[in-house]
Amino acid sequence: MKILALDSSGLVASVAVMEDDILTAEYNIQHKKTHSQTLLPMMDEIRKMINLDVASLDAVALAAGPGSFTGLRIGSATAKGLGLALDIPLVEVPTLEGLAYNIYGFRDYVCPMMDARRGQVYTGIYKFEKEGSGAGYQLVTVKGQCAMPIEEIVGILNEMGHEVIFLGDGVPVFQEKLANLMKVGYSFAPAHMNRQRAASIAALGGVYYRLGKKVSSQDHVPIYLRSSQAERERKEREEKQGSK
Amino acid sequence: MKILALDSSGLVASVAVMEDDILTAEYNIQHKKTHSQTLLPMMDEIRKMINLDVASLDAVALAAGPGSFTGLRIGSATAKGLGLALDIPLVEVPTLEGLAYNIYGFRDYVCPMMDARRGQVYTGIYKFEKEGSGAGYQLVTVKGQCAMPIEEIVGILNEMGHEVIFLGDGVPVFQEKLANLMKVGYSFAPAHMNRQRAASIAALGGVYYRLGKKVSSQDHVPIYLRSSQAERERKEREEKQGSK
Repeated sequence: MKILALDSSGLVASVAVMEDDILTAEYNIQHKKTHSQTLLPMMDEIRKMINLDVASLDAVALAAGPGSFTGLRIGSATAKGLGLALDIPLVEVPTLEGLAYNIYGFRDYVCPMMDARRGQVYTGIYKFEKEGSGAGYQLVTVKGQCAMPIEEIVGILNEMGHEVIFLGDGVPVFQEKLANLMKVGYSFAPAHMNRQRAASIAALGGVYYRLGKKVSSQDHVPIYLRSSQAERERKEREEKQGSK
Repeated sequence: MKILALDSSGLVASVAVMEDDILTAEYNIQHKKTHSQTLLPMMDEIRKMINLDVASLDAVALAAGPGSFTGLRIGSATAKGLGLALDIPLVEVPTLEGLAYNIYGFRDYVCPMMDARRGQVYTGIYKFEKEGSGAGYQLVTVKGQCAMPIEEIVGILNEMGHEVIFLGDGVPVFQEKLANLMKVGYSFAPAHMNRQRAASIAALGGVYYRLGKKVSSQDHVPIYLRSSQAERERKEREEKQGSK
């Protein structure tokens, strides 16, 4: 099984290739450039480095959202193009699940957090459960990914009462608020696991692929969770005009 | 604090740049090419991608060994060259500690394992301990890195009686033996965390850097743990000649 994975849902542009249980290539950049400037050149760079024959790919896994609207569209368009050209399926990995998978097997609850602007975060709560000796750990969703105010997710975590680790680009934005509001033990993931990694999308995508969780390029749509700013503004304009 | 990290101790060639708690770039390749063909071009690629001013680096962290002798020499030579040219210190991260740090905060004992040939593995046993609420987890060495037969490390693990996770390029080589010999619960790390990552070297190197654990380029030497094949053969020849 050979999977090409990509994640452009957040600040990081990330591409990875996984062949069975080996990550043959991974390339992550978190820099000022936009994903339209980075993602395809990065993909081309690793393709050359590992002499990748794209015709040998079995699937394209991607961080399917939520996230930056432009970022998601760049990722989805790229994945759809590859899927169509190569006639292979896509594996949609919810962005927050992919982030949580960064810290596979972690002992505490895992709460990934992306800045969704307007006082909200894209977040979710996950934990890992052992599948049996010799087998690995399974990602279990405690609270599925959603958009909510930081106060609301902290309220849920405090109620649950489990130790928790936070990660994602929402952490630096809300770190002070978390320190003030958290009533249960918590910590923050270190640099090598606190942002999107296509390698995690590939690994979790591989699990989903084996379970048959895949879609055709035609059927894939990003998971936005909220309407875009342009859509909100149009709706507001229409409501204003309607009330005149 | 800005750290450039590299790991060429095993099958993976890996380069990363970490700025404070942000991984700005990471590039990992596990392919047939030798590290002399990959490491410097990869470093140059990410330098261009993030417009890295090398004069702004505070340290170079590297997987200091054990590992492939040629790989370690390529990594050390590169790190020494950079350290000398930029007049910055090196941070030596023992290879097995770097590997264990891939699965930061893991609940079970962590046993990284590299194929050391001649029936041996480079290995060690680690665990993570919480430093206090709001703080992170600390890597604790249960058994420091060493070269030993697979049967010996399994004997130690069975005696300890703790659940354990294995990772590293020694796993596929010894997977069957492990299944036969292990008497305590165990699992294997998935693809996105089962091989060397310069990102882990950067993150753990950052911890060591803050603790003042750094050396000058002049003072750095790789940790070989064993003598090389050429050295062993010379010794055997000399012993043979001596006994004539």
